[in-house]
Amino acid sequence: MDTRLLEEFETPLPVIDLDRTQRNMDRMADYTRAHGLALRPHVKTHKSPLLAAEQVRRGAVGLTCATTREVQVMTEVANDLLMMFPPIGSARLQSLLALPAETRLMIALDSVDSVDALARAAGEAGRSVRVLVEVDAGMKRVGVAPGDAATLARAVRDAGAPLEYTGIAFYPGHVRSHLREQGDQLATIDRLLDSTLASLARAGLDPPIVSGGSTPAAWRMHELTGLTEVRPGTYIFNDRITAELGACAWEDCALTVLATVISTAVAGQAVVDAGTKALGREPLAAGVDGGYGALLGDPSIMVRSMSEEHGILDLRRTGWRPRVGDRVRLVPNHACIVVHLNDTMAGVRGEKLDRLIPVVARGRALAAAP
Amino acid sequence: MDTRLLEEFETPLPVIDLDRTQRNMDRMADYTRAHGLALRPHVKTHKSPLLAAEQVRRGAVGLTCATTREVQVMTEVANDLLMMFPPIGSARLQSLLALPAETRLMIALDSVDSVDALARAAGEAGRSVRVLVEVDAGMKRVGVAPGDAATLARAVRDAGAPLEYTGIAFYPGHVRSHLREQGDQLATIDRLLDSTLASLARAGLDPPIVSGGSTPAAWRMHELTGLTEVRPGTYIFNDRITAELGACAWEDCALTVLATVISTAVAGQAVVDAGTKALGREPLAAGVDGGYGALLGDPSIMVRSMSEEHGILDLRRTGWRPRVGDRVRLVPNHACIVVHLNDTMAGVRGEKLDRLIPVVARGRALAAAP
Repeated sequence: MDTRLLEEFETPLPVIDLDRTQRNMDRMADYTRAHGLALRPHVKTHKSPLLAAEQVRRGAVGLTCATTREVQVMTEVANDLLMMFPPIGSARLQSLLALPAETRLMIALDSVDSVDALARAAGEAGRSVRVLVEVDAGMKRVGVAPGDAATLARAVRDAGAPLEYTGIAFYPGHVRSHLREQGDQLATIDRLLDSTLASLARAGLDPPIVSGGSTPAAWRMHELTGLTEVRPGTYIFNDRITAELGACAWEDCALTVLATVISTAVAGQAVVDAGTKALGREPLAAGVDGGYGALLGDPSIMVRSMSEEHGILDLRRTGWRPRVGDRVRLVPNHACIVVHLNDTMAGVRGEKLDRLIPVVARGRALAAAP
Repeated sequence: MDTRLLEEFETPLPVIDLDRTQRNMDRMADYTRAHGLALRPHVKTHKSPLLAAEQVRRGAVGLTCATTREVQVMTEVANDLLMMFPPIGSARLQSLLALPAETRLMIALDSVDSVDALARAAGEAGRSVRVLVEVDAGMKRVGVAPGDAATLARAVRDAGAPLEYTGIAFYPGHVRSHLREQGDQLATIDRLLDSTLASLARAGLDPPIVSGGSTPAAWRMHELTGLTEVRPGTYIFNDRITAELGACAWEDCALTVLATVISTAVAGQAVVDAGTKALGREPLAAGVDGGYGALLGDPSIMVRSMSEEHGILDLRRTGWRPRVGDRVRLVPNHACIVVHLNDTMAGVRGEKLDRLIPVVARGRALAAAP
């Protein structure tokens, strides 16, 4: 336990409420267990092996990663790792295939070209890789159309060793309405999934793994027939967006940015030392002018605008008048971005520093390919 | 010189065109010299002592910093350092006052409370500090009203040693129109400055330094009567916003994010591996839906939307069809944010890697106060 006081640290400082974090992890572990879903948390949110180990200890079957740096770091903690990002480019492929031998790598793909490239590179590296076929469930980002899933799955199977066809994956990132109002979108995904599974069955390609899930829709994933696992990330900390969507309570927000009021010279506002470089600039919702963060104690008070190192707290609708030097804790719109902006976070119990949490998997694997 | 090829590196990778960077530095050095303005570049844009040294070599009188980490790192390169951020909080004050003895520190302030706190702490540290009174020139962020500048300047003078009243500073960050259309805003600032200088003169507080300047308005700073120095930052790299405002040509954009096309599975778009965590999410202009970056070779092709690790290139208005595996270079909206997202950048000459550039002043000074 670190005995320094939080007050001794410079701001802006990302602060992790460890009690809330543990409750968030417990809740998701309980939910998935109750519904017979495997949980493969996405580590992009915390980028911390320390916290990933806590997720594994609570029964996670493995971890999900988006960058090679995340995969490299998480080999410390788990052997079953999913790279949920197309492994395009020889440098990226080489990084993945150079992982420790005991790491059981699984990769999501959405093109025949990437199947071929992976099969070739994995063959040369003498390493077997499990493959999930990524399907677009309506987000229109990556993933083959559901009708093309069987074709790609067949290409994976036909590639043979060292590739192993393991199933399908999708990301319902377009489900961004309130938890109560997700029914229609989830029903559409359920139908897509149903037809995809049927076409795979006809081709003799029943998927052992059907992987989906995000934090905003996490608590309704059991409504999707055939789903075997989920990959939420943000749930470990939650954030203002998650609270706004009803996927957590305000009291479940475990990550805040500790900031200091640095100026009250301009009327109607207080300026804090947390701007874009500390809070990120994620909108509360697409096209909504909802500010960039809110006070932990009173979410009606928000960061209205920002510069790189300045955040403007809007005081026009409150009688609260903080003084220069006061410290505030801000719940950011999007926790994953705040983590990515920092090398170290302060883990607290209540108001007391418990330990520093290094963001080990932040940054990029810069090593050039051999 | 680093002999590795750019192709060997994983993407996303921030790439600095060193020839363009040098031209940008030369141009600003020439402009300020021609107009008798001192140049004190803001290092927040590059956070690199290597590049700061190049600015100093071209005649910069000192450097401007926004964080204690930036100040700490830049002591390697220059002795005359301006902390252009209110030094609020004991941890921040202690970090500043613990700088090497040969560092001549200057700090901008906007409240009597901060004058008192600084005077006390500097006295205890036995260190003299030059003080600029920060004036709000219309941005409404920090800074006293022009009419209150003399009062605060008097407080600094009356505090006496170890504080030394050195002048005033302002940041015209609200001047965000095209270079051609800034006339009215600059005339307003000129009038504010005029009355501020007159009231300071009446109080016997003529400011040795009158410091202003930003990149969007950099090339018209000579229109402000009484200005003695400027503090632009972005000009060293420029970016899509700067080009859009006419403060640089597209060919002057020296920072790009090298990205790989990772999916073309969804029609009308190509997905690259540079999203919010590589490009930042800065808008092109307030309230404008202008995407988050554009192709170096063809700025009409832009990053329409992003996830954390995905950028969606809009191909609806072009016949260009990149293939999975192709690499592209993207000019980000705001260079300073991209730098802040990375630990290392690749400095290139043409298409060849010249050397890696560590972003040494990235991140925060986490050390607790003693």
